[in-house]
Amino acid sequence: MIRLQPDWLLTDSGWQCGWQIEFHQGIITALGPAQPGARRLSRQVVMPGLVNSHSHAFQRVIRGRTEFRHPDRPNDDFWSWRELMYRAAMSLHPDQLEVVARLLYLEMVEAGITTVGEFHYQHHQPDGTPYADPDELALRLVEAARWAGVNLVLLRCAYHRSGFRVPANPLQVRFLDRSVDESLQAVERLRGRGLSVGVAPHSVRAVPPEWLGRLAEYARQHHLPLHMHVSEQPKEIEQCLVETGLRPVQLLHREGLLGGDFTAVHAIHLEADEIRALATSTVCSCPTTERNLGDGIVPALQLRRAGVSFTLGSDSQCQVDPFEDARQLDYHLRLVRQQRAVLDEPPGKLEDWLLTCLTQSGARSLKQPCGSLQPGLRADLVAIDLDHPGLACEAPQGLLWCAPREAVSQVWCRGVPQLEDRHHPKRAEAVESYRQVMKEFVHG
Amino acid sequence: MIRLQPDWLLTDSGWQCGWQIEFHQGIITALGPAQPGARRLSRQVVMPGLVNSHSHAFQRVIRGRTEFRHPDRPNDDFWSWRELMYRAAMSLHPDQLEVVARLLYLEMVEAGITTVGEFHYQHHQPDGTPYADPDELALRLVEAARWAGVNLVLLRCAYHRSGFRVPANPLQVRFLDRSVDESLQAVERLRGRGLSVGVAPHSVRAVPPEWLGRLAEYARQHHLPLHMHVSEQPKEIEQCLVETGLRPVQLLHREGLLGGDFTAVHAIHLEADEIRALATSTVCSCPTTERNLGDGIVPALQLRRAGVSFTLGSDSQCQVDPFEDARQLDYHLRLVRQQRAVLDEPPGKLEDWLLTCLTQSGARSLKQPCGSLQPGLRADLVAIDLDHPGLACEAPQGLLWCAPREAVSQVWCRGVPQLEDRHHPKRAEAVESYRQVMKEFVHG
Repeated sequence: MIRLQPDWLLTDSGWQCGWQIEFHQGIITALGPAQPGARRLSRQVVMPGLVNSHSHAFQRVIRGRTEFRHPDRPNDDFWSWRELMYRAAMSLHPDQLEVVARLLYLEMVEAGITTVGEFHYQHHQPDGTPYADPDELALRLVEAARWAGVNLVLLRCAYHRSGFRVPANPLQVRFLDRSVDESLQAVERLRGRGLSVGVAPHSVRAVPPEWLGRLAEYARQHHLPLHMHVSEQPKEIEQCLVETGLRPVQLLHREGLLGGDFTAVHAIHLEADEIRALATSTVCSCPTTERNLGDGIVPALQLRRAGVSFTLGSDSQCQVDPFEDARQLDYHLRLVRQQRAVLDEPPGKLEDWLLTCLTQSGARSLKQPCGSLQPGLRADLVAIDLDHPGLACEAPQGLLWCAPREAVSQVWCRGVPQLEDRHHPKRAEAVESYRQVMKEFVHG
Repeated sequence: MIRLQPDWLLTDSGWQCGWQIEFHQGIITALGPAQPGARRLSRQVVMPGLVNSHSHAFQRVIRGRTEFRHPDRPNDDFWSWRELMYRAAMSLHPDQLEVVARLLYLEMVEAGITTVGEFHYQHHQPDGTPYADPDELALRLVEAARWAGVNLVLLRCAYHRSGFRVPANPLQVRFLDRSVDESLQAVERLRGRGLSVGVAPHSVRAVPPEWLGRLAEYARQHHLPLHMHVSEQPKEIEQCLVETGLRPVQLLHREGLLGGDFTAVHAIHLEADEIRALATSTVCSCPTTERNLGDGIVPALQLRRAGVSFTLGSDSQCQVDPFEDARQLDYHLRLVRQQRAVLDEPPGKLEDWLLTCLTQSGARSLKQPCGSLQPGLRADLVAIDLDHPGLACEAPQGLLWCAPREAVSQVWCRGVPQLEDRHHPKRAEAVESYRQVMKEFVHG
C-alpha cells in the first residue's frame, strides 16, 4: 500500500490542500485529509493521469518532415500531407512499429499521459496480405505501451475503401478489411486476447454507410467505445453528400451511432443541426494536429453549449503536450473572435472544465476506470512540480495555462511509478532504438 | 579560448556537420571544420542564441491569473485583461520587480534566449513621482538580466496619456512622461550609464502624434533601435483615425518612423497600403500572447511578401517558448486558410526563415552584435539535444517544429555557460524568492 501527500490533490470536488491518496495493487483505496506516515510530495500537486483519446502511433516517424511545400504544388494541405503519411505507413515492419511506438508512448508518459486510445488501422503486410497472426501489429502496439508504462485502448479500425467512387489508393492496402464481418472478427479476436478494445469505423470516406449500423450495434452490445473520424475536412462532407444525400453527422444519426458511447474525432466542419445531434456524444479534439494539418478550428463554443463533452488527442504526434492541446480549445477561438476566455461558461470554471476534458471525459470516452481520483479506480496519477520556473506558485489555479510539459515530475500507471523526478528509466534505450529504425526508414 | 564541436552547427550558410566554433573573451573568433582538441558536444546541435525582441517583465506575475471571464462582464478581451495587468504594474516595488525579472529571465535562458528587448514603461513610484534615482526600475531590470545571464536591451518607453480624449487612467500613473524632452532625457541618461538602449514610443494611444518625429529623430541620430506597439487592437486604429485622420501605420509613415531601424510590435490589423509602407521595417510578432489576448492573427503572408522582416517576442510572458512562437506564425494562418506551410516561400525554406526570425532578425531589430555565428559577434549560443525523445533524430532539419523547450540543453551568454545539461545553477534561488514576492503580491 502506498500513501502520498502532495501539497494539493485534484479530487472530484476540486483541489484539496493537505490531503493524501492511498492505493494498493494498482487501485485507489482511499483519499482524504492526510494522516501521519504518508509520503510527503513537497511542492507537488497530484491529479488523475491524463487521457490521450486519439493517437496514430506510426505517424511519429514523419514528425517535422512535412512542414514545407512541394515546389510542384501550388498549396499543401491535409491531402498532400496524407500521401506522405501513407508512405510512412507502408514502410514500417512490425519490429520497427514497436520501436516507434515505444518512444512515442514513453514521450506520452513524460507528458503526464497514463491512458492512450490508439486508433489503429495499419493491419496488414505492405502487400495487403494478413500477417501470420492477423493481429501482429496491434499486439506490437500493446506491447510497446506495456513497455513504456501507459494503458492502451486499441480502437480497432474498420477501413474498406479509398472513398465513394474514389479509385483504390495502393498506399492504403495495409488498412483494408474486405467485409464488415472481417472487421468485427478482428475486434472479437482482440477481445478474446483480453485487451482493452474499441470499435472504430475510420470515417465516412473509408467505411461504406451500410457497415456503420453493424459496427455500432456490436460496440453497444459489448459496451465498447465507438470512435470515428468525423468532418475533419470539407472534402469528406462533399463526398458524403454525394453518396448519401446527408452530411456526415446526419448520416451517423440515421445509422444510430450517436450517443453516450460515441466519440466524434475532430468534428470541425458542422452545421447547426449536426451540433445539436452530437449533444449526448463526445468530441475528441486534436488541436495541435488540427492546426498543423490546416483542418480548421473546432466550433467548441456551440458544441459545448449543446452539451457535448470534449476529450483530447495527440493524433498525428506533431506535438505531445496535452495541456497545450487543452489550451488551444480556447486559444484558437480567441484568435478569430478577438475575445478572451471564450469557453468560460459558467464564468470562472474554464480551467476546471479543461482539466475534466483531459481526465474524466477521456476516461468516459475510452470506457476506462480512471480519469478521477476515486476509490476503486485505477491508480493512474500525475504529479506536477509547483517549483518549475514556469509556475513557481503556491496553489494549482492557473496550472493548465502555465505548465510547460517538463513541469510533469512524476507519473504512476496502475500504481507503479513510471516517471520519477522527471526521469523515465527507459528513455535512453527508447531513443537509441528509435534512431536506428529511423536510419532504416530514411534510407530504406 | 573555448572550442566546441557539436554534431551540427547553424552557420550563415546553413547547418554544417562536423564543424567547430571557437570563442574567446565572449566573442566568436572562428568557425570551420573541426580540429583535434575541440570539446565534443555529442548528439547536440549549436545555433545562435535566440533573441526575444519584446518583453514586459512585470507581466509575469499575472501569468495564469486572468484566464476566466468576470461574471459581471458579457465578454473578456484585451481591454479587460489590461486593467488586471495595470493592477499588477501598480503594486510592484523595485525589490519585487527585480525578483520577478530574475525568475523570468532565468526562464528565458532555459528556453534558449540570450538577448531580450525589455519594452519598459513602468518608470515611477506608485503615486507617479519619480524615484530618487529616476532610472531605479530600469536598473533593476538590467541587474536581473545580468544575474540570470541574458543580454538586455532596454527599450525605454515614452508614455504620456491614456489616449486621445480618453480620461486619465489612475492605474497608468507610473508610466507617464510629462514631455517628450523628459522621455529623451531618460534615454540619454540610460545611454550615459553605458546600457544598451532603444527608443520606444509606446503606441499611438499613449504618445501624442507630435512626439513621434522627435523620438524617431533621436533614435536615428544615435543609431538606436526604435520599437513601438502598432495596431494590436482595432480600437486603437479607430482612435487614431479620429485624432489624425490616419490609420496608425499611415501616421507613422507621415512622421518618418518607418524604415530599417523601426520595429512594429504586433502589426495585426493592417490595410494593404500599410503593409506596403512597412516593407523596409521589422514586425515583432508575439503569437503566444496575441492568441492569449485575443488580438487576432498577424497577416504574415502579405507582410512577408512585401519584404517585411519578422522577429518574435514573449510579450505578456503567458508562455516563454520561442520555437512555439515561431511555429505559430505559420500555424495560425493554417487554421484560417486550411492549408499547410503557408509561409513557405520559396518552397523548402520555411524552417530556415523561422530560425532567422528567432536569431538574425531579432539581432538586427535590437541592433545587437549577435544572432549569427560569425567571428566578431558575441558568443551567444544555444545547444539543443538531438537525443530528447521529442527529437531522437540524426540531423537538425525539422527541429523548429518538434523541439519542446526542454530540448534546450546548454546556453552560453557572451561565452559564459549559463545553462549546462539543462541545469541553471540559480534556478532554486530564483523560484524561492519569486514565491515570497508572490505571497506579498497576492495578499498585499
